[in-house]
Amino acid sequence: MKIIRHPTDMQRWALEQRRAGASVGFVPTMGYLHEGHLSLVRLARARAEQLVVSVFVNPTQFAPNEDFTKYPRDWRRDERLCREAGADVLFAPRAEEMYAHDASVSVLEARLSAGLCGVSRPGHFAGVCTVVAKLFNLVLPTVAVFGEKDAQQLRIIQRMVRDLNFPVELVACPIVREADGLAMSSRNARLTPEERAQATCLRRALDAVEHAFARGERDADALRKIARGAIERAPLARIDYIELVDDESLDPVVLIEQPTLCALAVNFPSARLIDNTVLRP
Amino acid sequence: MKIIRHPTDMQRWALEQRRAGASVGFVPTMGYLHEGHLSLVRLARARAEQLVVSVFVNPTQFAPNEDFTKYPRDWRRDERLCREAGADVLFAPRAEEMYAHDASVSVLEARLSAGLCGVSRPGHFAGVCTVVAKLFNLVLPTVAVFGEKDAQQLRIIQRMVRDLNFPVELVACPIVREADGLAMSSRNARLTPEERAQATCLRRALDAVEHAFARGERDADALRKIARGAIERAPLARIDYIELVDDESLDPVVLIEQPTLCALAVNFPSARLIDNTVLRP
Repeated sequence: MKIIRHPTDMQRWALEQRRAGASVGFVPTMGYLHEGHLSLVRLARARAEQLVVSVFVNPTQFAPNEDFTKYPRDWRRDERLCREAGADVLFAPRAEEMYAHDASVSVLEARLSAGLCGVSRPGHFAGVCTVVAKLFNLVLPTVAVFGEKDAQQLRIIQRMVRDLNFPVELVACPIVREADGLAMSSRNARLTPEERAQATCLRRALDAVEHAFARGERDADALRKIARGAIERAPLARIDYIELVDDESLDPVVLIEQPTLCALAVNFPSARLIDNTVLRP
Repeated sequence: MKIIRHPTDMQRWALEQRRAGASVGFVPTMGYLHEGHLSLVRLARARAEQLVVSVFVNPTQFAPNEDFTKYPRDWRRDERLCREAGADVLFAPRAEEMYAHDASVSVLEARLSAGLCGVSRPGHFAGVCTVVAKLFNLVLPTVAVFGEKDAQQLRIIQRMVRDLNFPVELVACPIVREADGLAMSSRNARLTPEERAQATCLRRALDAVEHAFARGERDADALRKIARGAIERAPLARIDYIELVDDESLDPVVLIEQPTLCALAVNFPSARLIDNTVLRP
């Protein structure tokens, strides 16, 4: 496995693959890899001749009050896991080489970004879109894999690829969960044992919503109330949002008649967690 | 010469070139081609194995009060000129196929776009950046040629390529002028004979600035005044701006100590004209 640090070297490698006619799979990550990431990596590995994994904790997608400096990092482990998973290239640029001191161009998504995490994380998705556009131009992937845990991000990236005509096939990869149902996330590492025990409330809330939906409940408010009840049983959990939105437009839904994304964000003292499920009538 | 109408077909062709290892030159235009465009086309022709010219009057870079519907068009002539200039592909998409009805992603440049034409044309450069990003992703050029007449646009596109890491080499092509010095522009066709006669005031203003600069004048205000005098001798000309700005940052300049862009925009009753020169101390 080749480790590439500099964006220029990454693009040179990518242009060589292009000339050689090789398909390139790509999994962008912020590192501190877990089984969720590895499921993306395996999917990309199966889909392309060459596989690039990037590890880059992108500063521009964190607000000043957020956890950029506290975001967990473990370079040695990430390197080993990428190697074991069969990556051909591990791209790990430094922020100073990704962003010029006078960088002034960004990619903005104006509709899907407005709600859900966009409310409590202003600027987050502009940071995500911009860095993913940059990474696409550096890695030149034929196929890129994103996780369904970041449901809003996935839909925004799909929209960006469509609206800016990136020649990339996007593949969505299902959420990977711990034995007790907690969705895998690098941020889980920051939870205290007590928080970790209570963090299952997200999955329990989604379970309760899915069961009510399966029994015929179609009223979004009623389903939201069910989720709220499940989360409120965890004393350390503070709800950021519980939303039921159209799975495509992310517009709020009153009655569930189309595929509907039920998305949760919950603040624990040590980390903010998200989870989601899609309800299909 | 192949005429391609649909973005999907354009990208398919481009991916084939990529696989074949062919270099692709690209000249994006809004059509109504003149000798200025053809100089860009010839430059691109000499630089690449395959040559794509696009003709697309991009609605999103016109404000509601601007001249989108009045922008001159002549498809037959454009087609003939592209063929004669040796284009391999003429890409002429329809707006409905370039923009989804719910398009929501745009590319924004936040610093270089603020002054000059950005003042009187809000949203213009966001429209330009977005459509050029889309065209780059559809045509996948190795080299793209832009004209120096649109000085601010050229610098913004250079910034976009740098900040989003597009794998494209940009080439700037000098301004082509009519015999009397008027910079070639599709909009010149809209001038009345009287306006056309007076439109030389832009080049005369730049001449006067260049002469004063050559004689040692370094004060931006003094140079601006000289330009103003030359334009005010044309009774139909209404000055939009006369600016002296740093050639790289486009920040206003007081004393000329670095390469400085002197840029003009002048409104005539039938068309808005721009011109520029770079002063190098």
